[in-house]
Amino acid sequence: MTMELTDPLLSQLQQTWYQTIPLSQFMAVEPLSFDGEQFLVTAPLAPNINLHQTMFAGSIYTLMTLTGWGMVWLQQHKQGVQGDIVLADAQVRYLAPVEEQPTACVSWGDTDLSSLERGRRVKIPLTVELYCGETLCATFVAKYVSLPLKVAT
Amino acid sequence: MTMELTDPLLSQLQQTWYQTIPLSQFMAVEPLSFDGEQFLVTAPLAPNINLHQTMFAGSIYTLMTLTGWGMVWLQQHKQGVQGDIVLADAQVRYLAPVEEQPTACVSWGDTDLSSLERGRRVKIPLTVELYCGETLCATFVAKYVSLPLKVAT
Repeated sequence: MTMELTDPLLSQLQQTWYQTIPLSQFMAVEPLSFDGEQFLVTAPLAPNINLHQTMFAGSIYTLMTLTGWGMVWLQQHKQGVQGDIVLADAQVRYLAPVEEQPTACVSWGDTDLSSLERGRRVKIPLTVELYCGETLCATFVAKYVSLPLKVAT
Repeated sequence: MTMELTDPLLSQLQQTWYQTIPLSQFMAVEPLSFDGEQFLVTAPLAPNINLHQTMFAGSIYTLMTLTGWGMVWLQQHKQGVQGDIVLADAQVRYLAPVEEQPTACVSWGDTDLSSLERGRRVKIPLTVELYCGETLCATFVAKYVSLPLKVAT
């Protein structure tokens, strides 16, 4: 069961995911916390298991993809800029089986998003780590791109 | 809608996915053909869309992950060996938006699976390509590992 999110911005992010990406709702992906610099996200095991009764590699990847995407979305809100966020490429490593509900964690670097306002795309490198308790179970090194919104003419 | 698979081995693979990986059923992943060397898999857009109305990056990755996994599973059946197949790492590149139902395609190299019978793990490098018509939309370069089954003592 998903607890109601107390942070309205995280609630809005979760609604954006659920309303536009059916897979995120099936996976029950849930933003946990955002302190301006670090963003934590989780998902329960049940809808995301594989035949070894651990978390499916595709679910792990998708959880980390959404964590990075969510971080860019949150930073754009915080910095008052807009852009269409897409994932360009990613490298994932699976280090240990995910046997309990994990937490995906990403920190914001020093990427400047302000050039979006001048109509320029921004490349955003992000590293997401997935933990079960203290155990690092997967890493995800990705490049996102945020594209300036097209102005209707 | 999923057509009934005429190849019993592909039917068995799809049932294995659907019964053990809930996400694969939600995504409606469907094996298309296997000729002993090349394996093709598809999934419809509807359950796999994102907010741009194209296929979600997580779904693209998961479809390609299952395509590679399925290829190892099929080769193990063909060669009469058994092993637990896991994904160790992967590099994915998104080259073009997936605007229609895609086909994921993987070819078998020359990996020898016979050491599974001698209780040794096998590393299997595979490259999966995702096409929309003639357009290459994503590539997935992965390392799978097949682990010899544990014998009950």
